[in-house]
Amino acid sequence: MKIDKSKKFLIVGLGLLGGSYAQALSDQGYYVTAITKERASIEYALEHKLIAKGSDFVDEELIKEADIIVFALYPHVFVEWIEEYGNLIKPKTVVTDVTGVKGCIVYKIQALLPEGVEFISAHPMAGKETSGVENADKSIFANANYIIVPTEKNSLDTVELCGDLGETLGFREISVLSPEKHDKMIAFLSQLTHCIAVSLMYACDEPDLERYTGDSFRDLTRIANINDSMWSELFLSNRETLLAEMDNYRKAFDKLYDTIKNENREEMREMMRLSTARRKKFNKPKKAGAEL
Amino acid sequence: MKIDKSKKFLIVGLGLLGGSYAQALSDQGYYVTAITKERASIEYALEHKLIAKGSDFVDEELIKEADIIVFALYPHVFVEWIEEYGNLIKPKTVVTDVTGVKGCIVYKIQALLPEGVEFISAHPMAGKETSGVENADKSIFANANYIIVPTEKNSLDTVELCGDLGETLGFREISVLSPEKHDKMIAFLSQLTHCIAVSLMYACDEPDLERYTGDSFRDLTRIANINDSMWSELFLSNRETLLAEMDNYRKAFDKLYDTIKNENREEMREMMRLSTARRKKFNKPKKAGAEL
Repeated sequence: MKIDKSKKFLIVGLGLLGGSYAQALSDQGYYVTAITKERASIEYALEHKLIAKGSDFVDEELIKEADIIVFALYPHVFVEWIEEYGNLIKPKTVVTDVTGVKGCIVYKIQALLPEGVEFISAHPMAGKETSGVENADKSIFANANYIIVPTEKNSLDTVELCGDLGETLGFREISVLSPEKHDKMIAFLSQLTHCIAVSLMYACDEPDLERYTGDSFRDLTRIANINDSMWSELFLSNRETLLAEMDNYRKAFDKLYDTIKNENREEMREMMRLSTARRKKFNKPKKAGAEL
Repeated sequence: MKIDKSKKFLIVGLGLLGGSYAQALSDQGYYVTAITKERASIEYALEHKLIAKGSDFVDEELIKEADIIVFALYPHVFVEWIEEYGNLIKPKTVVTDVTGVKGCIVYKIQALLPEGVEFISAHPMAGKETSGVENADKSIFANANYIIVPTEKNSLDTVELCGDLGETLGFREISVLSPEKHDKMIAFLSQLTHCIAVSLMYACDEPDLERYTGDSFRDLTRIANINDSMWSELFLSNRETLLAEMDNYRKAFDKLYDTIKNENREEMREMMRLSTARRKKFNKPKKAGAEL
């Protein structure tokens, strides 16, 4: 169910994701304000009607009038913000986020917030290889997954409200995972794939290879164009879980290496057949214009 | 320059690539025939006007009337075919291929062919995750690379004719590489990426992950849907070169692993910045409708 049109939103952090939230909500007629560091981002967002009001300092008025506050900040900045200003948030406000790691964030934020303010964590699995509010684009939510990450401190009503936010933003599938399961899943599906792309590009020290490349190399390295300050923080915030997934993948790569080294064609083909069978489940559900 | 319309083509092996060659050429009015094992493939190709004539046995008439013969077979089948039937090819015929490995093929084929028949090897870097003539699609050549792989036995005229074939088929960029450079380049850009995708999918043994995945995992594993009989042959035909590239990539992956393990944020960010800078060169030249 979509969120009641009377609800007022405050977005803290107007980057690509914060800006895309603002756009998706404002375009549907919700009242949306923003707090972000850069004056230019506020001006851009006002000019493009992403927000109704905005401030480049922590404006208590904006915090007080919000029913739902969405934090779209780097993990450590989010924690620092709540430590410093969390007490300004009025009771009954619902706080949510877009952070890509959860175990190191969710319990801490829930413990820091004042009595009566509920934090329900969420991970919108959408993005682009660009950043900044200038690249805000609500269409990134269509056909993407949205994961609600509650703890036992959350009420059912708030979990439901968070799901309604995902629906309002236009996500295709909305799921619920514990912080621990979320972090393991994200280590494999997202962080490991970024590690692979960076490693492959790092190993690519021959000049002129781009003249000969096909689509497979391009597809594998699309995400090698990476925001180093954000991703180094995400990797280190999920360090042990990510290292375990890297170990697991490395074992599979080494096994394939050995089948080639030992010319063990049958075992190699067996790995390829398993890979092919498993990959089928990951084809995108077909929607108009969707690729597989 | 496009090839003279009077030239007659014979395609040996009507799979995805052979069929796409036939389609691209027939649609432009060239005379194209085919020899392939499966009667059903010939019938499909005749019905869809991909070829003018075809045979499911080695028909000497089709070989004799051809000016240019394109072999679109697995590497070992190609060599066996030439060993058995190469003597049927008449002098002045130009023979070319689509084989994805070169060092183990080119010199052998050139030595086997009768006097006066010139073999000029080529690698059209185009494909799909499907196979068979039913999936033939000449549009896979647009915006793709075509590599001519001559040896010192080739005449300049024939190298030029081979480039004209690439142009006639509609490739975006046509390059020339030695068999050895070709195999090193292909080991890194194509074979290694398939190894990575297969390993990642092999390591993916959690159920239900597809419910949470974003596009990065989908992009990395698109090619994990792999033809095991063809790719095991390609890997083993280029074994030493591929193993060297796998070693090189593994070193980069291990280095990134260590930066995470040792919480060496600065070195990690440095690797990410190098990766980002290098990836820029691989953006596709923009054409109408092209993605990056």
